[in-house]
Amino acid sequence: AQIALERDHEAQREIDTRYRLLMDFTSDSIILVSVGSGLIVDINHNAALMLARTRGDLLGKSLADYFADHTRDSLVAGLEKPVQVGSAAMMEVEIKSSQRRLQLSGKMFRASGEQLAIIRLSDPGAGVVADERLT
Amino acid sequence: AQIALERDHEAQREIDTRYRLLMDFTSDSIILVSVGSGLIVDINHNAALMLARTRGDLLGKSLADYFADHTRDSLVAGLEKPVQVGSAAMMEVEIKSSQRRLQLSGKMFRASGEQLAIIRLSDPGAGVVADERLT
Repeated sequence: AQIALERDHEAQREIDTRYRLLMDFTSDSIILVSVGSGLIVDINHNAALMLARTRGDLLGKSLADYFADHTRDSLVAGLEKPVQVGSAAMMEVEIKSSQRRLQLSGKMFRASGEQLAIIRLSDPGAGVVADERLT
Repeated sequence: AQIALERDHEAQREIDTRYRLLMDFTSDSIILVSVGSGLIVDINHNAALMLARTRGDLLGKSLADYFADHTRDSLVAGLEKPVQVGSAAMMEVEIKSSQRRLQLSGKMFRASGEQLAIIRLSDPGAGVVADERLT
């Protein structure tokens, strides 16, 4: 049983390592938010750059506070309206500090009984995003 | 002790869920490869599309087999040469089935004692990738 536990523990550490690396390695700007509280539970370096803060500053803060045009409630309402079941919801957001307008796409999911949202911020001006835009 | 174990187990499942979702949600084409064997240990839907196969077909197969111009050894040699310490290594690859030329960027890491590489495939023709190219 001890060996099985240690194996479990190793497998856990491996997935944890993969998750961390993927957050760092992706070219996307990714934020994980607790839907209930609206607080940022994880954010990668690219997303922190878009909000013009450090990761450390942003962890545990309310995501809506960094947007000029959203509250927690309006963000959640937007995330609850995907165009198709299973696809990501899309909305526009304005970064408070820079007045930069970005595309937010996100998806809600349940993990450990808590509802989280995975969010991607992208610049609608950049090429690759064009085919993902709704308007 | 039982409660602590269950809590560990929940935390593990949560990170696992986050990892799976991030793989699906990222706009990048991501492949995880075992450096020793050259076999694909995980691949997301976007990357499978670029190789024109299903995820199920690709898991456990040798990544180099899908490239016209690489062997496991030449891929590993390429991955071992990042431009700067900590940054990703870059090389060009040609997809065997489509003759499409793609940019491969990758980084090696150690998880559970095994050396893995996280790889991103991107189309050098697409806009956003342009500023990441070396040549």
